[in-house]
Amino acid sequence: MSTFKSTIKNMNVKDQAKLAQEASKHLALLSEEEKNEALLVIADTLESETDYILKENEKDLVNGKEKDFSEALMDRLRLTEDRVKEFANGLREVVELEDPVGEILSDWTLDNGLNVEQVRVPLGVIGMIYEARPNVTVDATGLALKSGNAIVLKGGSNAIHSNSAIVSVIHKALTKTKIPEAAVQFIASTDREAVGQLFTMKEHIDVLIPRGGGSLIKTVVENATVPVLETGVGNCHIYVDQFADLDKALSIMENAKTDRPAVCNAAETFIFHEAWLNEHAELVSALFEKHEIEVHGDEKAAELLPDVIPANEKDWAEEYLSLAVAVKVVSSVEEAVAHIERYGTKHSEAIVTENPDNAITFLNSVDAAAVYHNASTRFTDGSALGFGAEIGISTQKLHARGPMGLPALTTIKYRMRGDGQVR
Amino acid sequence: MSTFKSTIKNMNVKDQAKLAQEASKHLALLSEEEKNEALLVIADTLESETDYILKENEKDLVNGKEKDFSEALMDRLRLTEDRVKEFANGLREVVELEDPVGEILSDWTLDNGLNVEQVRVPLGVIGMIYEARPNVTVDATGLALKSGNAIVLKGGSNAIHSNSAIVSVIHKALTKTKIPEAAVQFIASTDREAVGQLFTMKEHIDVLIPRGGGSLIKTVVENATVPVLETGVGNCHIYVDQFADLDKALSIMENAKTDRPAVCNAAETFIFHEAWLNEHAELVSALFEKHEIEVHGDEKAAELLPDVIPANEKDWAEEYLSLAVAVKVVSSVEEAVAHIERYGTKHSEAIVTENPDNAITFLNSVDAAAVYHNASTRFTDGSALGFGAEIGISTQKLHARGPMGLPALTTIKYRMRGDGQVR
Repeated sequence: MSTFKSTIKNMNVKDQAKLAQEASKHLALLSEEEKNEALLVIADTLESETDYILKENEKDLVNGKEKDFSEALMDRLRLTEDRVKEFANGLREVVELEDPVGEILSDWTLDNGLNVEQVRVPLGVIGMIYEARPNVTVDATGLALKSGNAIVLKGGSNAIHSNSAIVSVIHKALTKTKIPEAAVQFIASTDREAVGQLFTMKEHIDVLIPRGGGSLIKTVVENATVPVLETGVGNCHIYVDQFADLDKALSIMENAKTDRPAVCNAAETFIFHEAWLNEHAELVSALFEKHEIEVHGDEKAAELLPDVIPANEKDWAEEYLSLAVAVKVVSSVEEAVAHIERYGTKHSEAIVTENPDNAITFLNSVDAAAVYHNASTRFTDGSALGFGAEIGISTQKLHARGPMGLPALTTIKYRMRGDGQVR
Repeated sequence: MSTFKSTIKNMNVKDQAKLAQEASKHLALLSEEEKNEALLVIADTLESETDYILKENEKDLVNGKEKDFSEALMDRLRLTEDRVKEFANGLREVVELEDPVGEILSDWTLDNGLNVEQVRVPLGVIGMIYEARPNVTVDATGLALKSGNAIVLKGGSNAIHSNSAIVSVIHKALTKTKIPEAAVQFIASTDREAVGQLFTMKEHIDVLIPRGGGSLIKTVVENATVPVLETGVGNCHIYVDQFADLDKALSIMENAKTDRPAVCNAAETFIFHEAWLNEHAELVSALFEKHEIEVHGDEKAAELLPDVIPANEKDWAEEYLSLAVAVKVVSSVEEAVAHIERYGTKHSEAIVTENPDNAITFLNSVDAAAVYHNASTRFTDGSALGFGAEIGISTQKLHARGPMGLPALTTIKYRMRGDGQVR
């Protein structure tokens, strides 16, 4: 029977951010070994306090049931012994990642003898704003601490008991390590005003990372004066060119649409070259039937495929995140690129073709974090690319683009050493 | 006699941003040679149209005189044949810089055969918001075009005739090159609302770069939803430690304060260790006297130095940008670091000491773009560090920190090539 007590207090958000900032200064100076030891202690403590975490999680589940949450949402909320074990193992994987802090990116000496080093340092304090998944509490904390940053966590109110419990366990673990407890702050208030304070606290918070649905991200981007790392909204397209190989096209469409429809690198629109679709309409509609995919298409799509719901503007722009797809028929690669330019979210875009010129046109002209030739958009993911755990997938151009691993949580500093040099 | 005609029309700001965006797509695909040729044509045309530029500049000068501008401001506004020549030569120097676009930053193949390239690409459209210096019009345009970006220029109304003339000459030059004229947009409207539109045009502008005084930068940061690269405010400190070498301390102070007091990497506050100042007060005050430096200090400074004006909160936070200095006396390196933490702008901070431990404490603990041991803060500058021309000095942590050369105007893109890979 767990006798665990919560360490979470309902504090002023500004005070919490200040505490995090103060802690970040100590954290920035710790060695990789000290940070790794702390992460391992957290992992062990999460496992040994599984009962407490599950008991608290139960409160969120009861609340979710009362509020009649969807099964998908309940599933995201639900913790089990195995899931807690996964959290712990996730931290152990972060221990294996290379610490970016202290890396000398370049190093030169001016003619006057002044030595210049460009060195990686932590950003400082990361503000994480997220929705119902309690795993973000652990994952984001692990990546922040490993890269020498303090973190201020603001999770969704639906997971408040689970998140509080997890953070309390992390705090308990940190008392046995070199990392100050204050380096992990959890905002317990569900008051909107309290959260809004995070948006403008430039003196104490170095970056805000929103993770969740499009409306959460939009709210943060529009209201924050603290710099934001935008993540995750993916209205991804697969363009099947006139010269697409049939097998590649079918398997890439199937994988990108049906493997995990709810993730951001899943495909939301298929763009077909008219000539290709004309020839292969039967196999394409068989694929749609096999997975019971709902098809929203333009007029030409409706001519060539059965059961097409007429598409409107919203269909072209929407992330369905389910077994639905928008279908656009074009007569050139340029037309496909123009459609993507208009409706894409600069996440992941693919062309299927055996024509090298069309591939090059697509890869060079489409402005997105990841552009693919003859592969599924599902590879835009830190673990798939070999970066290890990721803090999110950036769809912005500044600072970090695409899957963000540990280096995205750092900045640089010029360190100059002289013996009296003046200009 | 010049028969030059202005190409600047009073257009809708949104239309201009859209034109720039359209042009940026062509520009992104040009080769380094094509971009260099264009810059050389612009340089030559600026020289051959010097008469026209000076004639238009005269209008700004007449207006400045009527409005009783300070001599410093008039000097910044005033163009001469030599200054126009400097503009042209600045562009010729940009031609010599390496083009960052297309650089493959890393490149690997997954076990399944999918090839991954991380390649540098232009940001797209840069919005430049600046004050009275017409040279920014040329410098920023040169750096933007070389890095494959379109630019939307919004200069100060005081230089409106000079800037319009320069942009008209650039447009004339571009008609003879591969770069579309529309890649350089100049906002002629002095209407505040028109400018405000730039702040939120996320669909068409990729980054805003404000260059000018603190209040301009603050306005942009607080009102923009377009990502901002913050530049330039430098409340830089020189900390003269207990173990500072006398000659180094005096020459670094003199250089950092008096070489060019109006620039952002000039020193604004001297922090002295009490023991050191106690011993060398006479030579320090001789230095202040020699340059007629106005001293605002704390109580201990007033005890040790003559003619000290009592410093208030504003003095600690202010960029004097003139021959004035704030003086703080401390009893440890930690106290100096704490003062810098409270009042610094994270630009450039220096310690003068012969004690290696104090140097390390300072270099590691001070959070700034550039930290110096035994050298003047004046080296925080693209040309001093060997980067060539710079678009500004970033005082933020995300994307770029310190002097920003061409790579700061790029982002990356993952380019994936497969033969049907799925997850």
